[in-house]
Formats: sequence, structure tokens, C-alpha cells
Amino acid sequence: MPVSTQAAHPLTLIPGPVEFTDEVLQAMATPSQSHVSPQFVSVFGDALALLRELFMNKDKSAQAFAIAGAGTLGWDFVASNLLEPGENALVLHTGYFADSFADCIDTYGGVPTQLKAPLGDVVPLEQVEAALKSKFYKLITITHVDTSTGVLSDIKSIAALVRKVSPETLVIVDGVCSVGVEEIRFDEWDLDFVLTAPQKAIGVPAGLSIFIASGRALDVFKARKAKPGSYYASLAKWLPIMQNYEAKKASYFSTPPVQNIHALLASLKQILAIPLEDRFAAHEKMSEHIKETIASYGLKQVAVREGYQAHGMTAVYLPDGVALPDLLPKIAKRNIVLAGGLHKDIATKYFRIGHMGVSAIGDDRNDFTLALTAIKESLAECGYSI
Amino acid sequence: MPVSTQAAHPLTLIPGPVEFTDEVLQAMATPSQSHVSPQFVSVFGDALALLRELFMNKDKSAQAFAIAGAGTLGWDFVASNLLEPGENALVLHTGYFADSFADCIDTYGGVPTQLKAPLGDVVPLEQVEAALKSKFYKLITITHVDTSTGVLSDIKSIAALVRKVSPETLVIVDGVCSVGVEEIRFDEWDLDFVLTAPQKAIGVPAGLSIFIASGRALDVFKARKAKPGSYYASLAKWLPIMQNYEAKKASYFSTPPVQNIHALLASLKQILAIPLEDRFAAHEKMSEHIKETIASYGLKQVAVREGYQAHGMTAVYLPDGVALPDLLPKIAKRNIVLAGGLHKDIATKYFRIGHMGVSAIGDDRNDFTLALTAIKESLAECGYSI
Repeated sequence: MPVSTQAAHPLTLIPGPVEFTDEVLQAMATPSQSHVSPQFVSVFGDALALLRELFMNKDKSAQAFAIAGAGTLGWDFVASNLLEPGENALVLHTGYFADSFADCIDTYGGVPTQLKAPLGDVVPLEQVEAALKSKFYKLITITHVDTSTGVLSDIKSIAALVRKVSPETLVIVDGVCSVGVEEIRFDEWDLDFVLTAPQKAIGVPAGLSIFIASGRALDVFKARKAKPGSYYASLAKWLPIMQNYEAKKASYFSTPPVQNIHALLASLKQILAIPLEDRFAAHEKMSEHIKETIASYGLKQVAVREGYQAHGMTAVYLPDGVALPDLLPKIAKRNIVLAGGLHKDIATKYFRIGHMGVSAIGDDRNDFTLALTAIKESLAECGYSI
Repeated sequence: MPVSTQAAHPLTLIPGPVEFTDEVLQAMATPSQSHVSPQFVSVFGDALALLRELFMNKDKSAQAFAIAGAGTLGWDFVASNLLEPGENALVLHTGYFADSFADCIDTYGGVPTQLKAPLGDVVPLEQVEAALKSKFYKLITITHVDTSTGVLSDIKSIAALVRKVSPETLVIVDGVCSVGVEEIRFDEWDLDFVLTAPQKAIGVPAGLSIFIASGRALDVFKARKAKPGSYYASLAKWLPIMQNYEAKKASYFSTPPVQNIHALLASLKQILAIPLEDRFAAHEKMSEHIKETIASYGLKQVAVREGYQAHGMTAVYLPDGVALPDLLPKIAKRNIVLAGGLHKDIATKYFRIGHMGVSAIGDDRNDFTLALTAIKESLAECGYSI
């Protein structure tokens, strides 16, 4: 393995941004290229084609998108294109991000109804079924992994339930903290829209809104009667652009982020160099190791239900008597950056570890040996003995 | 001067993206950092403070913003925050981009009225004055430099006219192809909103929406009665985030593009190392040289009126008998990338040269000696003799 070209720096082991490979960072530094040059058109086209592979998509009625922005912008694409004012959306709530998605839906005139799981748990399927039978929901949103709690939702079973009970309802997956680490079979599971961000398990610096929309979702958007809800987040503007770039034709609506797209291609090539199943299994193995070690320290996870815990992050309650502003700086002194809490009900009571991408499954890395030791030593310094 | 670390590559001399400095590209490859780490918070805060300097702003009631996205997204911020449905906007049209801005305003329910200049010219001040007296416009939009025509608008005089005739009207400047190359005195000229993109005269890869809003504009937004028009492009969401980062406090709405912000800071430091007046003068000198040389080749500019021609780009009509698909590849063979036309009425009849940033005013660069020679030789190969 070549020596890293990255300057010595603290290891960023939060649930995104994650550590990046040298190749990805080098691609971020690609010298200037015209956004309509054959060189860049080819890079963008290849990236869009590989995004299909990442989503396990072969059905060409679907389309992948990569647009300058952030994961958040994916919500705007859903709420301003797929819902018309007054239409109902069922929002499954497993943490912070469902509240925000609901807020976004409301902004564009949709009517969100939240089904809230108890903190650290998922919404029972029977509740989802009852809600879907109570009235027609144009779409359902599921946070695949809620980054505030580490709760993993079972999108396969939920999607199957939707198809059985309310087949016209669009299945929308917020995959910001899941795409690239959790199993997602877009075609096979009959999903309609999966949105994500690059700085998590895709392993690319923040700066993109990445998503894939099914043929069914695109048909719903094309049949839209209301005027578009957004200009920049308009599927009407971007769909032909993505289709053209994927067909290796230059096209212009708004200048794409050339360097970020180069980095996306570099990372997708690395990710897809091994079967996705192997990637998922490797992440699962590391996740189990981290969760077992944390448990051996006597610490409890925020995500309470076995089988519904994310494989790319772990949210961990602090032991009694240890405060976040004491612990995290002690861990940081050991050159390990972890994240504080985000869920408003418990924000000061837990911390979060991100274990996605090269830190978790890269060859010859010992990031989590260092991190788990740093946590143990820092807890001891805080007076908590294991 | 150190040897460039950039691999040999064709010179991108289009009206954005422009060539980037080594330091900017190295900043794009910054190893991962948490978006709420003290290191990154400091970088983001410094970048926001330097953006004020770039806009010649000292009045702290204004606020600068840098958000993952594109120049285009700046239109959404204007149209979805500063206009309420049914309110009037006066759009000065000097090319392609006014049509798009008007389209964006219409999307969010505002009512755009376009004042169209003849192709290659500006709207006479008397026409603007008559329009402003005919009814109340909540805002006026001016494309400072229209990238499709190279027409430069006199925003100083237009702003002064607005303050005289309709003082409550917000003055909105689309500075995508002007910020960093044309004189803009935000406070002194009493402007309300200047939006731009990084990949032009700011010299940073595409991927950001950059703008500054006056205290007056922020008051108008705070007094808004209609619900917000956009979620991602919401001033309500982003204003506290930018205020916090500038005060060196971590804050979260949506993960910022860490590497792009590092690159922004690197470039702003380089830009502001000399007085802005000197930067503008150096661009003017290079622009004159290019325009004179083009004229000496017998070629005409799209921008017809002296004093209203951009200093960071030149749009040039092809001579009779020379076709764009013949000329541009011949220039490209000489490792110079120029741009084709964009204005729909004349798209196939002209080409565009970008002369912003390090290619135009960098020490020890001969980019335009090469480019002007490449144009001359390629024209000759196309059968046009000078």
C-alpha cells in the first residue's frame, strides 16, 4: 500500500464527513476543466452510470442525479416535485431528521403526518400498515439510518408493505447515512427515490446532493398539475441534464461542481472494485466489533433494538458522571474526532462514532483500534473505570 | 515563483470555470475535518469575513453567505425570500441570464417584468426610471456581466437611480461573472444583494452559492408575511448559521462543503493580498489588450457599446465563412479551451473568451499570448486570413 499523501491530521471518525482516500482527495484537486469539455462530460457520465451500480439499479426508466448542494437539498427535490400542495406524506420518525424532512414538506405545501417511534426504536410495521389504510398518502418517507440515533429502519419490509397495501404510494428513502454501507436494492425492493450525501459512506467531501428516482417517481412528477415548487431543485430542469451527461453529451442548466464530480467518480470506482455484498459484510463486521467493545465498557447504545442498529455509526450514552464537554476534548487530544449528540431530547447525554468507508474497512488501517483505546483511556481520565 | 503542482492540462480560458492557483487546488484536497471542529469553524469564519472585504462591506447589518450549491441557487434565495407571491420584480435583460432569473422569480410566485436591451447593449437609464415610476417594484435585478453577451451593466448608476426614484426597491445584482473582476462597492453604492459563484473571478472550483445581503434586504425578509418559498434556500435557516460561523461558533443546518470552503479562504487570501483597485485595474488592462487584439484580427464583439463591455470576458463574433465546430477544435488542439455561444439568438455565430483570475493577471503567466496566437493560427487554418 502506498504511503498516504495526506498531511498528518486528527482522524475524523464522526457520522460524516468521514476520512477520505488519497485518490479521492487528489481528484478534488483536479486542474480546471470546462464543464462541457469532452473530458469532463465523460467523467460525469461514468459517475452517473456507477451511481446506478451503487443503488443496484439496472432499470433505465430510473435516473441517478448528482447536483451541487447537500443531502438536505434532496428533501427539497422530493417535496417540491413529487408532492403537490395539499397532498399527504407519511413520515416515519426515528430521530432528528424526520422532523426536518417534515418541515421541508410543509414548506412546499405538502401535508406531513409523522409516525413517531419511541426514542431509539423503529415504528412497528402494523402502525405503518394502519396509517396507510387510513387515507391515501402520495408518498412515505423513511430515514434509513437516522444519524441522530443510529436507528436502522427495515426499508425492504416497509417497501413491500407499501406495495401490498397502497401500491401507488411512492417509497422515499433518506439514505444520507446509509448509501454505501447498508444494503439497498433499488430495483428489487421497488423503491422510488433514494437520496444521499457524499461525505458519509460514499467517501467524498460534502458538496453534492445525490439521488436516484424511479420511473414511477418520474411519471408522478411529469403528471404534476401544480407549477414547480422550486427552481434550483427542479426535476424538470435537471432530468435532461443528467440524461445527457450519462449519454456523454454536454448540457447546461447550472455549472456542475467539476472537482467534486471527479472525486465522486474516483470513490465509486474504489467502492465498486469489490462486490457490494462484501462491502456491506465488512462494515457489519466492524460495526459488531465496535458495538461489542462499547458494551464491554459498560456503555449502552441509543438504538435499543437488535437488528435495527446502523452498521456505519454507533450512538453511545455517556456513563453516569461523565459529561460530554469533558470527554470529547480528551478523546480529541488523542487525535480522534468523535461527534456529540444531535437528538434534542438527549443531546448532552450521548456521543456518536462514525465507522464508514476507509476508516472502517480500509486495508492496513487501525483507526478503530486507536479510537476505541482513546475512548477507554479518556473515560478513565473522566473518572469512569471500566 | 514555485513550479506549479498541477499536471499539464489544457488551459481553460472560458468565462468560468477559470484556471485555479495551486494553493486553491491544494486546499480542495484538505484531509477530512468535522464541519463543527474548531479548525474548520475558524476557516469558515475567516472566509466569511474576507467575503465582506471582497464586497467592500463594513456595515455589519449586512451578512455574507457561502452555501453548497451554485450561482443559480442565489436566484432561488432572492426569489423565495425577498419576494412574496404576487409582488413585482423589474428584471433588466442584457442576455440569457435575465430570462432564467425571471423564470426563477415566476417559480416562486413573484411577477417579473423584463426590460430588454437590444442584443449586445444595456437598458437606457431613462427606461429604467420610467418603469420604476410606473408602479412599485419590490426589487430590481441587474445582471452585472451577462456571461452570454459580455455586456457590463452600470450598477452604480442604476442603484443611485433606484434610491432617488423608488428608495424602497431592493437592488439585486447578479454578479456571477463580475465579483472579483468588476468594481462593486456594496456599502457605498447602497446595494442590497449581490450573488455570485466561485468558479469565475473568485478563482475557486464550482460548488458554492456565494452572496451578501444588506440589512435592508434582511429586514424585508424578516417582515415577510407569506411562508418561506424554499427549504434549502431559506434565509431563515442559513442566516443564524452564517452569523455563528463568522463569530467562530459551530452551528448546524446542513453539512457545509468543508473542502470548497477551505479553497474559498485560500483564494480570498490571495485576492486580497493586493488592493482590490489594483486587481480591477490589472483585469482592465488585460481586457483592453485582448479586445484590441481581437479587433486587430478584424473581429467584432457582441457587446457593442464602449464602456459597457465586461473586463473578465469577451464575446466575439465569428468572421464570415468560419463555423464554430471548425474553429474551437483547432484552438483546442493548441491546448486552449474557449467557449461557444450561449445566447439563443446567435449561439452558433460567436465564441467566448474568459480572462479572469490567475490566467489574466497572474505573475509569469503567458496564457493569453498563447490563446491569442492560437485563435489567430486557427482562424487561418479555417481559411480566414488576418
